[in-house]
Amino acid sequence: MTDFQEPIRDVAHLGHVELLTPRPAESLWFFTEVLGMTVTDRQGQSVYLRAYGDYEHCTLKLTEAPHAGLGHVGWRTVSPQALERRVQALSSQGYGQGWIDGDVGHGRAYRFTDPDGHVMELYYEAQKYLASAELRSRLYNQPQKFTGHGVGVKRIDHVNLMCYDITPNRLFLQEQLGFRLRELLQPEENGAEEGAWLSVTPLTHDIAYMRDFSGAHGRLHHIAYWLDSREEVLRAADILSEHDIFIEAGPARHNVSQAFFLYLYEPGGNRVEVYSGGYLAFAPDWEPIVWRREQRGRGVYWGGALPESFKTYGTPVIEPVQAGQGGQTPAPVFDPL
Amino acid sequence: MTDFQEPIRDVAHLGHVELLTPRPAESLWFFTEVLGMTVTDRQGQSVYLRAYGDYEHCTLKLTEAPHAGLGHVGWRTVSPQALERRVQALSSQGYGQGWIDGDVGHGRAYRFTDPDGHVMELYYEAQKYLASAELRSRLYNQPQKFTGHGVGVKRIDHVNLMCYDITPNRLFLQEQLGFRLRELLQPEENGAEEGAWLSVTPLTHDIAYMRDFSGAHGRLHHIAYWLDSREEVLRAADILSEHDIFIEAGPARHNVSQAFFLYLYEPGGNRVEVYSGGYLAFAPDWEPIVWRREQRGRGVYWGGALPESFKTYGTPVIEPVQAGQGGQTPAPVFDPL
Amino acid sequence: MTDFQEPIRDVAHLGHVELLTPRPAESLWFFTEVLGMTVTDRQGQSVYLRAYGDYEHCTLKLTEAPHAGLGHVGWRTVSPQALERRVQALSSQGYGQGWIDGDVGHGRAYRFTDPDGHVMELYYEAQKYLASAELRSRLYNQPQKFTGHGVGVKRIDHVNLMCYDITPNRLFLQEQLGFRLRELLQPEENGAEEGAWLSVTPLTHDIAYMRDFSGAHGRLHHIAYWLDSREEVLRAADILSEHDIFIEAGPARHNVSQAFFLYLYEPGGNRVEVYSGGYLAFAPDWEPIVWRREQRGRGVYWGGALPESFKTYGTPVIEPVQAGQGGQTPAPVFDPL
Amino acid sequence: MTDFQEPIRDVAHLGHVELLTPRPAESLWFFTEVLGMTVTDRQGQSVYLRAYGDYEHCTLKLTEAPHAGLGHVGWRTVSPQALERRVQALSSQGYGQGWIDGDVGHGRAYRFTDPDGHVMELYYEAQKYLASAELRSRLYNQPQKFTGHGVGVKRIDHVNLMCYDITPNRLFLQEQLGFRLRELLQPEENGAEEGAWLSVTPLTHDIAYMRDFSGAHGRLHHIAYWLDSREEVLRAADILSEHDIFIEAGPARHNVSQAFFLYLYEPGGNRVEVYSGGYLAFAPDWEPIVWRREQRGRGVYWGGALPESFKTYGTPVIEPVQAGQGGQTPAPVFDPL
Repeated sequence: MTDFQEPIRDVAHLGHVELLTPRPAESLWFFTEVLGMTVTDRQGQSVYLRAYGDYEHCTLKLTEAPHAGLGHVGWRTVSPQALERRVQALSSQGYGQGWIDGDVGHGRAYRFTDPDGHVMELYYEAQKYLASAELRSRLYNQPQKFTGHGVGVKRIDHVNLMCYDITPNRLFLQEQLGFRLRELLQPEENGAEEGAWLSVTPLTHDIAYMRDFSGAHGRLHHIAYWLDSREEVLRAADILSEHDIFIEAGPARHNVSQAFFLYLYEPGGNRVEVYSGGYLAFAPDWEPIVWRREQRGRGVYWGGALPESFKTYGTPVIEPVQAGQGGQTPAPVFDPL
Repeated sequence: MTDFQEPIRDVAHLGHVELLTPRPAESLWFFTEVLGMTVTDRQGQSVYLRAYGDYEHCTLKLTEAPHAGLGHVGWRTVSPQALERRVQALSSQGYGQGWIDGDVGHGRAYRFTDPDGHVMELYYEAQKYLASAELRSRLYNQPQKFTGHGVGVKRIDHVNLMCYDITPNRLFLQEQLGFRLRELLQPEENGAEEGAWLSVTPLTHDIAYMRDFSGAHGRLHHIAYWLDSREEVLRAADILSEHDIFIEAGPARHNVSQAFFLYLYEPGGNRVEVYSGGYLAFAPDWEPIVWRREQRGRGVYWGGALPESFKTYGTPVIEPVQAGQGGQTPAPVFDPL
Repeated sequence: MTDFQEPIRDVAHLGHVELLTPRPAESLWFFTEVLGMTVTDRQGQSVYLRAYGDYEHCTLKLTEAPHAGLGHVGWRTVSPQALERRVQALSSQGYGQGWIDGDVGHGRAYRFTDPDGHVMELYYEAQKYLASAELRSRLYNQPQKFTGHGVGVKRIDHVNLMCYDITPNRLFLQEQLGFRLRELLQPEENGAEEGAWLSVTPLTHDIAYMRDFSGAHGRLHHIAYWLDSREEVLRAADILSEHDIFIEAGPARHNVSQAFFLYLYEPGGNRVEVYSGGYLAFAPDWEPIVWRREQRGRGVYWGGALPESFKTYGTPVIEPVQAGQGGQTPAPVFDPL
Repeated sequence: MTDFQEPIRDVAHLGHVELLTPRPAESLWFFTEVLGMTVTDRQGQSVYLRAYGDYEHCTLKLTEAPHAGLGHVGWRTVSPQALERRVQALSSQGYGQGWIDGDVGHGRAYRFTDPDGHVMELYYEAQKYLASAELRSRLYNQPQKFTGHGVGVKRIDHVNLMCYDITPNRLFLQEQLGFRLRELLQPEENGAEEGAWLSVTPLTHDIAYMRDFSGAHGRLHHIAYWLDSREEVLRAADILSEHDIFIEAGPARHNVSQAFFLYLYEPGGNRVEVYSGGYLAFAPDWEPIVWRREQRGRGVYWGGALPESFKTYGTPVIEPVQAGQGGQTPAPVFDPL
């Protein structure tokens, strides 16, 4: 029993995601008027937003840019010491980019990239959200009023990144940052991994990596916000439809994570998931669920399959890399009858 | 205003449907153990079933037969006089087949066919369900206990019939029986009708006709049972999946009727819909909703489309009638990744 | 069978309700910002409103007045002839008050009172709602866009009136207007009726009468708007709480009607119900459900009981009529721990 | 920043609860036929049960005993080393009772009591559930088939214990076992604590302490099982009502934890909660939510209040301790109209 390796437990949770958008006004309209999020600050080309249940000051940084995609992913550590320990490890492995002074909502942060090139940062000091009188909730333990406007997402749930080769990226998160591998899509034994779901919390995933069948690097698959019920996801589908937001897939039930999902493209082109349900992984000795072809790993539990675009569409949107290797990002179309 | 034609209002509601099945034991298992219905009687090759909220003794007659399909559809009239009036009209038009003495759950009935050949009957005398002590509900106005077993459908909702040419069939129901046309799928103006939804109640449809793209006559598209919430439809999808029942489409939201649906094939091969939501049509001067191609008449509101089998699969299952006319009933398959 | 009396079926459905409010601005804020209804017109001291699924131009007329309460209840008939027949019957019985020219949303109407003194009107000519481009729904058969703002009620459901003596009022509706008695709360056999639920549609009630334990006449108990799911009623409770709207009872499940309810007081003082679920009464020979004390007729199915105010609070709010006879309208209070 | 005390993180999650029942057959019927749990083993006077989503072999041990109440609470540690560390701490403080060899579903365990006298145990070695072919789920990451029978609870959620004085008990859990205090009900500043909610996971509570107003020690308030949606809690209320199980409170929404609840008494007399919703506490520097009287700490968010029995009824059921100090356990009654 003495050889049981106690795990690294230094990262607390997903803190925030920075999204890039070439259509900042329309993206902001979408996140506020349609999803129902709240603006907490503006700095330069960025707007900071939050969902009503987020405890931090903001969980989304929306930044104007020539192309859609991921700015960075921010992770909060469990303590100042934990932050130091992880920075030590990252810098000694050559992944580090150095410290930044901080940003709206959090203190100094250490920047690094995963092997596929996605920018991430670690921080500990965080600003907790304190609602103004107008936005204070009657529910005393709720950070902010539930206004009942739009979809009304409750909190950030996870981020999903595309990468050329999943394995080194998930191992990086596991070994350097203490993420646990919860589920793995690897259709053939010893074959390429097509999806990996990892977390530092009991959520099935705080982050997922999806294989980028286009052959590109560093792209964003989606960010996900949480709703408390599947009914709210169905209601979201109605609201999105009425606002002409393209629903790529769902509402339906995932195999992986068991959750109930809906994927949409926000006006800037980034894919966003509205998400509910699923299960929590409490086992300290969790054994990853490995999906082979025969376990129906299509992403949809009740039947049907995710659209082809799910494998190739990411942001920034790219042109086909090479014939014969996939890489084409089909324009989403409404099927005629 | 004196030329306003007061409508025929002699048919009260859908009473019951007789389903034929070549696999009676498996079909019975499905309707009782999976859908959660109750057996009320058995006679000859038939078993009589009900949902817990049905007020009549039974709403489903399951009859062993060489092929799956429709036995007949039973309609209850609003009064004995209304029955006489409709029989008079039907027999004078040559659609009648004559009286039968009655069946489990209802008194004498007049048999007739619609132009496409589906057998129907009209009756007034009905046996109301009286629960045994064991099946009595604690909810005094509920006909039967809600046992919480299986999907737990509440009541019969509607029947959907395929036919070669919709127009004469819907006109028959409108003119001879007083049905109101609620919605109509006619992709091109003056083109062929592909779906018609009619009712004598405020439900958007007690019956629908779907164009049979196989070119056959007299087939069944599906019968539908009601659940009180969309959440129960999602729960049904879980139960069906766990019992290896094929889900052809859904859970998703219809355009037509606005309802939330799930289509499955029961073990005998008949399509069954689990159904909730939708709207009620109260207007006495209802104007039919006519769906053209440009109104997104794909049957699915939020995106996606109904599978091709929806146009061709019905019971009895048939071989392709003629090349170039459709008629192929594709075997439902689970898509590989 | 020849002595079967065919019922009167001349009234089609509840058309609209006029509510009086001494706080018109706050009441309007409530119906638009909190319930999510839409203003369609303004005339004099009145504002006309609708829910997104109502097919008529408006279903609520909100009128400034010294006291809260009922203005009138409007019923649409099935045809012009049906209107003439009912007017004939009403005027010959001495209940009629005569014709009015019409109002926003409908043509000429015949005014009358029920025995307890509530003003009602019958009309046939109705203006169907036609949404502006901005409010047009992407769901072609839905009269208006679902904006996702506030509670988002879908359509008017029913009205509930208090009266000194229920029996003559319900018999008036049954005999003069063809309403069917669906359920009746009469705790003791041959005792006083305490509630009666009636409809001309398959809804369990288009109207209910509740005994006014204060001994007053002509008061309003509540109006009810429909939501498609119980989850939306729960969500409504959150929104109401966040907006400091007093919830008198619920969310919970009724015994009578089986429906899921929530009662609130709008700022003008009128009780409003947000309502979902229940059952539909399709039987043409419906036998009223009579609740005696032993059938748990407390109004709440799962346990608990409706508050005392449910028996005495109505609008206009009154002072106690007589000591020892009830009549006190307790101010709704929030219970301390 | 160097003085930041890194927290103890040795306890992983609530493992199981042993319930005592004087009516073992009826209790077993309740947990299997009504709640829908599965029996995994029987030993002596005990039956071992699980919910379909529990990853361990069993989470409920139901043991015949003269009186209802708590047998013990089992906590799983994050590692063998963590187990040793906690045992070291507990035994050095005098709370320990020593090791047991293990039980169905887990290896050797260390027994101890909290200050109020509730028996608890810590263990690391656990038997993961492996479903038989018949009970294997089609959802590959779900430990067991969702049969759709009865309420269908998904997993154990938390346990709630009554105690004479909350403060020393919650401090014991915080200091010896590393629990975080999530919420605290203390109506007056510096006054007696009436409720404390603590967890080692991001759940708002794995355990709660409620003040026992009867003045007794060592009693059980309730155990709670999780459902994925509020709709399922409503459905549970229907099933419980049909099976004559007494519902003490709910379905309604808690203030504390924000969750949706329903409390019932199982046939042996123990209170059981069916639970859904709520929020997750991810902040590593969580600051306890302290409810004073003015924050509406009634336990019910939308209005109403928990019944008086909530303060005094626990198991074992006791006679009043002392006049004037509460202590009476009122028999739950159904209110007449």
